[in-house]
Amino acid sequence: MITSLPRKAIITAAVSGAIHTPTMSPHLPITPQQLIEDIMSVYEAGGAVAHLHVRDPETGQPKADQEIFKEVAAEVKKRCDIVLCMTTGGSLGDTVENRAKVVSTLEPELASLNAGSLNFALFHVVPKYEGQWKYDWERQYLAGTEDFIFPNTFYTIRKFTELMGQYGTKPEFEIYDVGMINNLAYLIDTGKIETPVYLQFVLGILGGIPATVENLVYLVQTARQQIGDFQWSVCAAGRTQLAMTTHALLMGGHARVGLEDNLYLEKGTLAKSSGEQVAKLKRIADELGVETATPEEARQILGLKGLDKVNF
Amino acid sequence: MITSLPRKAIITAAVSGAIHTPTMSPHLPITPQQLIEDIMSVYEAGGAVAHLHVRDPETGQPKADQEIFKEVAAEVKKRCDIVLCMTTGGSLGDTVENRAKVVSTLEPELASLNAGSLNFALFHVVPKYEGQWKYDWERQYLAGTEDFIFPNTFYTIRKFTELMGQYGTKPEFEIYDVGMINNLAYLIDTGKIETPVYLQFVLGILGGIPATVENLVYLVQTARQQIGDFQWSVCAAGRTQLAMTTHALLMGGHARVGLEDNLYLEKGTLAKSSGEQVAKLKRIADELGVETATPEEARQILGLKGLDKVNF
Amino acid sequence: MITSLPRKAIITAAVSGAIHTPTMSPHLPITPQQLIEDIMSVYEAGGAVAHLHVRDPETGQPKADQEIFKEVAAEVKKRCDIVLCMTTGGSLGDTVENRAKVVSTLEPELASLNAGSLNFALFHVVPKYEGQWKYDWERQYLAGTEDFIFPNTFYTIRKFTELMGQYGTKPEFEIYDVGMINNLAYLIDTGKIETPVYLQFVLGILGGIPATVENLVYLVQTARQQIGDFQWSVCAAGRTQLAMTTHALLMGGHARVGLEDNLYLEKGTLAKSSGEQVAKLKRIADELGVETATPEEARQILGLKGLDKVNF
Amino acid sequence: MITSLPRKAIITAAVSGAIHTPTMSPHLPITPQQLIEDIMSVYEAGGAVAHLHVRDPETGQPKADQEIFKEVAAEVKKRCDIVLCMTTGGSLGDTVENRAKVVSTLEPELASLNAGSLNFALFHVVPKYEGQWKYDWERQYLAGTEDFIFPNTFYTIRKFTELMGQYGTKPEFEIYDVGMINNLAYLIDTGKIETPVYLQFVLGILGGIPATVENLVYLVQTARQQIGDFQWSVCAAGRTQLAMTTHALLMGGHARVGLEDNLYLEKGTLAKSSGEQVAKLKRIADELGVETATPEEARQILGLKGLDKVNF
Repeated sequence: MITSLPRKAIITAAVSGAIHTPTMSPHLPITPQQLIEDIMSVYEAGGAVAHLHVRDPETGQPKADQEIFKEVAAEVKKRCDIVLCMTTGGSLGDTVENRAKVVSTLEPELASLNAGSLNFALFHVVPKYEGQWKYDWERQYLAGTEDFIFPNTFYTIRKFTELMGQYGTKPEFEIYDVGMINNLAYLIDTGKIETPVYLQFVLGILGGIPATVENLVYLVQTARQQIGDFQWSVCAAGRTQLAMTTHALLMGGHARVGLEDNLYLEKGTLAKSSGEQVAKLKRIADELGVETATPEEARQILGLKGLDKVNF
Repeated sequence: MITSLPRKAIITAAVSGAIHTPTMSPHLPITPQQLIEDIMSVYEAGGAVAHLHVRDPETGQPKADQEIFKEVAAEVKKRCDIVLCMTTGGSLGDTVENRAKVVSTLEPELASLNAGSLNFALFHVVPKYEGQWKYDWERQYLAGTEDFIFPNTFYTIRKFTELMGQYGTKPEFEIYDVGMINNLAYLIDTGKIETPVYLQFVLGILGGIPATVENLVYLVQTARQQIGDFQWSVCAAGRTQLAMTTHALLMGGHARVGLEDNLYLEKGTLAKSSGEQVAKLKRIADELGVETATPEEARQILGLKGLDKVNF
Repeated sequence: MITSLPRKAIITAAVSGAIHTPTMSPHLPITPQQLIEDIMSVYEAGGAVAHLHVRDPETGQPKADQEIFKEVAAEVKKRCDIVLCMTTGGSLGDTVENRAKVVSTLEPELASLNAGSLNFALFHVVPKYEGQWKYDWERQYLAGTEDFIFPNTFYTIRKFTELMGQYGTKPEFEIYDVGMINNLAYLIDTGKIETPVYLQFVLGILGGIPATVENLVYLVQTARQQIGDFQWSVCAAGRTQLAMTTHALLMGGHARVGLEDNLYLEKGTLAKSSGEQVAKLKRIADELGVETATPEEARQILGLKGLDKVNF
Repeated sequence: MITSLPRKAIITAAVSGAIHTPTMSPHLPITPQQLIEDIMSVYEAGGAVAHLHVRDPETGQPKADQEIFKEVAAEVKKRCDIVLCMTTGGSLGDTVENRAKVVSTLEPELASLNAGSLNFALFHVVPKYEGQWKYDWERQYLAGTEDFIFPNTFYTIRKFTELMGQYGTKPEFEIYDVGMINNLAYLIDTGKIETPVYLQFVLGILGGIPATVENLVYLVQTARQQIGDFQWSVCAAGRTQLAMTTHALLMGGHARVGLEDNLYLEKGTLAKSSGEQVAKLKRIADELGVETATPEEARQILGLKGLDKVNF
């Protein structure tokens, strides 16, 4: 893991996600227009990829609405060449079928593909916001995760892989724990997944592996032993976001920031946009001598089909 | 992790489980009588704990039948003082309520408590047995796990913990991946779980962390950092059983063998009983100078309430 | 290893050392005046500690000259309150007695204490500078290290520890490999070394442990297991300097930069002073939200006796 | 690091060494006849390699006497086909030239080659034997190691490598800490050492890396990253011998026992011969299903020139 080879690091930003709720930050993008603006802030700050979930514009509740996906994606495509990575994680409790639709509808270049099942818990943050809820759904949405599993069986993974293969969409495999690397290794060994793969290590979700540098190093080492060559990125929940993404840049990895993962720019200061986080990480990368990739360079690094082949 | 301190190692055997099916080995215990005999073979070979699942005596299908649990437990208690650790994992697809019943019915000294959710996959072994199935249910039971999640949400863990607390049953926390240590650490920190805890690292399930010495070392190190002092054991699926349990004995851990985890005694030779595996591990322990615990010593090490306080 | 707790990081700079030679950079400080200026650049950029070796002002050859040590230290003390950490490593081939003198002569607050012996090799850099040598001694000084051992026996360590204890000088233990942590643990356990200790992990010397994040994580983990609580810093040879020190800041450690360890500011650009490297690391620390310690705060963190108790 | 692949494990025994002294055990072989008998006990117990140091037959003091080396080697060769691995470590304080002689004199198939310098300390065992010394030299020999470095500079390593290359002697590289793997990687990368190499991880010497499973795993992982494919063995000082060698057998490594490393067979019981330790490890290997290599198989695995090409 040589730390200073010449290479380009891809900065991704996940702009909205399905974890944070409107009460938590006034800057969380919710409407199509807000999502578009947040993605543009990412692009302007030097981000190469935007990871996209959409929400009900009225309530801010996460909802895999194909029309909104298309509206946001089409407008962003008009304005810039940033890579859009569509979520297939959906919102908490969404059906697998509904989560998959965005692939066949938009035929994106890149989409997330969660590499296993786990408890995905947000209930522990509820006490922090008691008495402040903006919308009715928020409290129950979060509290209900005490009994929630994010379902990604081997069958789901196989089906998503086949679907993405059909549309030329590159999977970004989300890895929440060590065993999920083995899930992929098994699917690679049995010919179900093509290499080289692109891994996103997702650290710090309650239910998955915590966000520490030891864990990041262990995940990368394990993947090297089980998978060989691959591209990888890291994202981390909450206040560890900047630490983990900086470690990743120094370890030869790519990095994901954005308001999906962390609402703050620095201790005590909410980020006004995902672009602010990208800009900060870019300044650090510049100081460290780590060059960042343009969207076009990101396409080459990840082997994407190109913006002219999407359906939006 | 000093390897040679004077101390006693607890050998557990899981005698039947819910993973293997009758086709795979004629020695897999199925009827109450067979379960009792297999447990006695464990006791006689020097095992201190038997981990118990029960099955439909007609078909061999895993089934949490309270009458059978009671029949087996009561008869074993008549014959010897081995510790019985009841499963709350149930069979694949069982409801959480049904899985919990064994605690309130039998009030055992020790019961398993799975510390998180994961894909729990056996479908990859189906091709090995095609054309040989003894019972109709077996193929579908195994093949269906391609779409199976072993559900253990935070809510389930909390409820099981409360239930066991009510009956004085000590939980044996089953850990299938690194993040599950954090699940427990969270529940300990928030006062939901009492310390010291007893951990069973379950390695080599497809969907969980693979059975390698690196992973075992990493799990133990992580638990020390996150939980502090605890008792721990290891079990491993299939041919890695003996290697992993031997590593554990050398690392200061306890060890679980048995036909639930592995049907073989050595390469190419099916074990005739769980006791054969216990006897082998005991011979290795003896050579290594690792003393093994009697059932009574196991009770002291784990802090169990005693055989006089169970309801069977 | 929580990465974002409020705490202060000590930035040290080693301004000249005994590794680099005048041919390698026109900015390497050699004369007392140059050393003073380089230390002042460190102080002004936010460094809290300067690590000091001295050289023959005529030839630039490393030489533990007590008069020069005193001249530099006294002048720096007049100008600012930076902590001076005196080397007891000496130059390559120096006697142990000569290396120790700086402690009894200057009675410094802090001095390096190398925690074991190793091959300390620079011969591999010779080809890069062939035909460009400024001074006669340089080539042989470097080439001769193919047959050089940096001698720090248990006897030497014990004697240095006793000497520093006598003068109230805090040892900064230089750790070049994993076993040296055990050397200290042995000396702590046998009452020869007082805790809490201050460790400097020195990575990337040919003969010692390489500068990778895996190795840094492993050293810190090992020290936690063997020593418990301690303060630690990292320095790394050559182009890995900035990566390793940034990792350290994120891991709760302190960081050492300076021209002793690395002559460059960034790829292809020689640093004009140690202060330039400090300023860069400080900018990164600021972006990461890691507060840096003043000299006075460094004294508190390390438990130093104070600038009023030195003999210069 | 798959643990159960079909493969053969080489058991080596180091029969006398230069660490233990006659006071410590009446079974430590000293005279040529005793050395021969101990080697034969190793062979008969299933050992494939014997590692040989010789001693002054009168006093038991370690001494690289070429006549004795030859006498022992020739007699062993008459009696069996065990591989002899000659030490080039010599006794404490021996000159490099003297240590090398055994290669040119005997032209052995295999010889040790120490991969770096370190403090090599035995002084801490002195108190255990005070008042019991059999020979005058013993106490000072051991106590003097507080100020001892085992000198193996890059120059020495290069010279030994060249010498062994000249005589077709395969080096067994002794690795005492993580950085020594990098020493070899550097020499491999610069064409000074041929691959595949054979590594002996030497754990538990005071001055080197301690004998823990974490350290063993870390050494093996590091070597895989830096060197790629290689054969490796482990030996460990004192009471950790059996634990570490058993770990190694399970990890795909080879194993070295013998009275050089450990005088005991089990807690409180001195081994009567190195063969007793080999027999114990062989019983464990048999239980674990790890096949052990014959001397002829060891020659194939390590790529040795053959017993017909030695000069004894």
